[in-house]
Amino acid sequence: MALSAANKEIIEKAIKAIHERVFYAQYPEHPKAYGEEAPGKGLEAYNNQLGKQFTGLLQQNPVEWTGEEVSPYTNKPLGITYPVFDVDTLIVRAGRAFGEWKKVSADDRAEVLVDALERIKNRFFEIAYATHHTTGQSFVMSFQASGPHASDRALEALAMGYEELNRFPASVTWEKPMGKASVVLQKQFKAIPKGIGLVIGCSTFPTWNSVPGLFATLITGNTAIVKPHPKSVYAIAIVVAEIQAALKAKGYDPNVCQLAVDSSNKLITKQLAEHPLVKLIDYTGGSAFGSYVESLPGKVTFTEKAGVNSVILDSVADLKPVVQNLSFAVSLYSGQMCTAPQNFFIPAGGVKQGDTVIPYEEVKKALVDAIAGIAGHPQMGPGTLGAIQSEITLKRVNSMKELDVNILLEPKPVANAEFPEARTCSPVVLEVDAHDVGVYENELFGPIVLIVKTKDTAQSVEIAKHMAEKHGAITFSAYTTDEATANMITEELESVFAPVSLNLTGMIWVNQHATFSDFHVTGGNPAGNASFTNPEYVNKRFVWVGHRRVA
Amino acid sequence: MALSAANKEIIEKAIKAIHERVFYAQYPEHPKAYGEEAPGKGLEAYNNQLGKQFTGLLQQNPVEWTGEEVSPYTNKPLGITYPVFDVDTLIVRAGRAFGEWKKVSADDRAEVLVDALERIKNRFFEIAYATHHTTGQSFVMSFQASGPHASDRALEALAMGYEELNRFPASVTWEKPMGKASVVLQKQFKAIPKGIGLVIGCSTFPTWNSVPGLFATLITGNTAIVKPHPKSVYAIAIVVAEIQAALKAKGYDPNVCQLAVDSSNKLITKQLAEHPLVKLIDYTGGSAFGSYVESLPGKVTFTEKAGVNSVILDSVADLKPVVQNLSFAVSLYSGQMCTAPQNFFIPAGGVKQGDTVIPYEEVKKALVDAIAGIAGHPQMGPGTLGAIQSEITLKRVNSMKELDVNILLEPKPVANAEFPEARTCSPVVLEVDAHDVGVYENELFGPIVLIVKTKDTAQSVEIAKHMAEKHGAITFSAYTTDEATANMITEELESVFAPVSLNLTGMIWVNQHATFSDFHVTGGNPAGNASFTNPEYVNKRFVWVGHRRVA
Repeated sequence: MALSAANKEIIEKAIKAIHERVFYAQYPEHPKAYGEEAPGKGLEAYNNQLGKQFTGLLQQNPVEWTGEEVSPYTNKPLGITYPVFDVDTLIVRAGRAFGEWKKVSADDRAEVLVDALERIKNRFFEIAYATHHTTGQSFVMSFQASGPHASDRALEALAMGYEELNRFPASVTWEKPMGKASVVLQKQFKAIPKGIGLVIGCSTFPTWNSVPGLFATLITGNTAIVKPHPKSVYAIAIVVAEIQAALKAKGYDPNVCQLAVDSSNKLITKQLAEHPLVKLIDYTGGSAFGSYVESLPGKVTFTEKAGVNSVILDSVADLKPVVQNLSFAVSLYSGQMCTAPQNFFIPAGGVKQGDTVIPYEEVKKALVDAIAGIAGHPQMGPGTLGAIQSEITLKRVNSMKELDVNILLEPKPVANAEFPEARTCSPVVLEVDAHDVGVYENELFGPIVLIVKTKDTAQSVEIAKHMAEKHGAITFSAYTTDEATANMITEELESVFAPVSLNLTGMIWVNQHATFSDFHVTGGNPAGNASFTNPEYVNKRFVWVGHRRVA
Repeated sequence: MALSAANKEIIEKAIKAIHERVFYAQYPEHPKAYGEEAPGKGLEAYNNQLGKQFTGLLQQNPVEWTGEEVSPYTNKPLGITYPVFDVDTLIVRAGRAFGEWKKVSADDRAEVLVDALERIKNRFFEIAYATHHTTGQSFVMSFQASGPHASDRALEALAMGYEELNRFPASVTWEKPMGKASVVLQKQFKAIPKGIGLVIGCSTFPTWNSVPGLFATLITGNTAIVKPHPKSVYAIAIVVAEIQAALKAKGYDPNVCQLAVDSSNKLITKQLAEHPLVKLIDYTGGSAFGSYVESLPGKVTFTEKAGVNSVILDSVADLKPVVQNLSFAVSLYSGQMCTAPQNFFIPAGGVKQGDTVIPYEEVKKALVDAIAGIAGHPQMGPGTLGAIQSEITLKRVNSMKELDVNILLEPKPVANAEFPEARTCSPVVLEVDAHDVGVYENELFGPIVLIVKTKDTAQSVEIAKHMAEKHGAITFSAYTTDEATANMITEELESVFAPVSLNLTGMIWVNQHATFSDFHVTGGNPAGNASFTNPEYVNKRFVWVGHRRVA
């Protein structure tokens, strides 16, 4: 076997994009790029799967079948069940597959994994429906995030891994001159994989957040056990099924990549994570469990936990496009993105706009009006906000009303003509003062926006920096027309490893991290210890070992 | 400022060597390469330093002066004292220097550090005498290990860091087509250093083991505090002094790299290591303290601890060159190298040599005789074995006689005509059985050799693998003329991340790891969590942060 010319080209283009960091997409984000028939076929596949066993996996002899997914749009169970396996079975199969997979060349692994991505591409629309009806994302976001964007991130990790695996020669003749004679050694350099990797998924981005770690683990020769969130299995089950099909097509053990479904009342995550043969753990989710994962001895972990993302308003060329941009950023998928802004720091003295100053109260009102405008818009509202994935998020939003703070915008249901039963909620906007640290210092996951009144921009920066350092930040957004202020903000925030998005307006939002260009999470603050996809993200999954023998 | 053409060429050649992994040395290991006058000048400098304050550092206002180095050759104190600083002073100065150094470009940092290496080169002979009279290494080894070999390792880390820092563009224009229009962002990619790095040295290899971490930390924009072993300060003090001189020459704060000398009765290592502003720790030394370092929360650590290095004898073309090679490997610097073999696994059935089998007893005798031969040789003995650095090591060797095991070779002083007062000790060779795990499972630092009688080679491999997995291994050596056995050994040992040296005879020994070619420690087993120099070794010292703004 070998790496086919077509697949090699896909990887080489990805490596080039990673190095150049210009815009690149192997998988176009526009649904129309996939042909006229694709959407219909995807819907048909989705409808055919509802209420049935998911039989696409190549894992034999399940002990039972389980499933508890409920659509946030219809409020009805999907009725899909997935095969369940004992932890011991999963580990034994992963260990056995590892014995084979670790010996497979980087080229041959890459061939399988690029094939898998091409297979996954054919199921983007089914994945989109699966994501839509488990996460509550709008259909377009479901398509883009779980389809092309996720596959581009997977390819990015795969390509980075491929590059690193080929960084040193497989063998060299080493000759050291020693006067008249010389010493000659034959040397081999091998990238030895660590063992079994566990990939722990989340309920809101079941593929996007899981496939980078999964493909990084697999390309570097480890085997993988994918443990999805029990409420959001379907989309990643398709991904695992296609990886297994690609493995099988090349004659490899499909257990190189297994799906480990559990149920809310019998979670197996800790049992898997603590197993001594599990050497790598990729995790996306809440901070408490993430910190537990990071603390496990003898594991290499890659975490994305919660962050407190801040926006600083200092000065603007024109306030209107700014509040439009920001209101969209907080409304998109009802703030259920790890990249969504939460705390808006506005100076009590207002925000400069050219030669004038817009008073604090006006800035606040403009922002609140813009947020209310999106939620209340009959077409734009439901398409932007989608639905709320979990009842807990909805409760959190409503509990905000019980805080002793000023509520600027009450949360309410978002009318959705297509899905009248949808669990929806418009953003709640609260106003607090800089000293109300207890309110704004935690990630308040969901459509919750806090406007924090500060003394001035210097205080805004000081607090935002402290939040990033202490609680983590995945994104950070600032608006200033003053270059010195821009530099000051950038220096302060980068010192706590938070990336700065400056003056974003128009069709680009702070929530979005472009594959092949933007690092997602820096790994340097408490929001997570890993980054999609820097070299460390793949290097830590294997060990360079050099052998030598007398020639 | 910028990177000069000459220094850029030095870095580029090093990067090329790292990638090709063929033989390369920027600093020739032969003393004659440094000119006729260099040895005499080095000795003069050494003699002038004895009994005086070491005034070469650019660190102001010490609280006191201290020094406790004693030559293992003369048994007399060197009488050199070094400036002592409070931990708070060291941290404050390192923090202040960090504010400046982190903003310096990779090119400008590289310019300073290559300059420093060129300055250090001019002091190789003084460093050699300093090493000789603190570690007990022979003069030639002192010269090579602390001089050219250490500087090559420093350059390797520097070059690897330089390559990684330049891996992504500093800025790009990112343009995403959006139908008729497009979104354009200006992006910046910055490698943000972590903060203050602590480098904890050891008594036996004061520069070789410390400069890779030191140069890796500095090139990536962190500042460094070098905490040497109080019994082995002089050599690394020269290195730090020259780095400070190079910093000052370019107008930078010399406190970018500080020396933190302490004394045995008032160690400051833990105070430094636990300081919240210390983010990176490089450590070489015993396993207990190394595991403490690794366990510190919030630190990125790079450790080289102890390992149990094994030799497996299965079959040989000719036993004589094999035992010659091995006896030299255990005698070199009296087994005080972290790479020295300790446990020799020999099958009870003997070792094949061509069509015959050499009985176990004969193999054992050949090995013991060869070891005794080196120690007893009037010229070769002292030059190979050098002296014993620490009284503790000598006690350990002698305590071996109290074990209830067969002593094949008694330790005794090694006659040294030049230094009659030298603390010397020839290797003790013990014979144990495979089931005497309690005896051979620990690193017995110093000239201690264990011959372990096994059932067969399969058992030898099983035990050696288990030792590497449980207790770590930095080197591993095997002799077999059977290709299938060679492959089996390689597969088993690489699975626990131990590098295999096969059939070494002649002028190459398992103890030696060549810069630019051999990884020193893999980082994958308990012998240490880092490797000189893989990409991870530099990547973990900084964080990629990407900023973006609307163009």
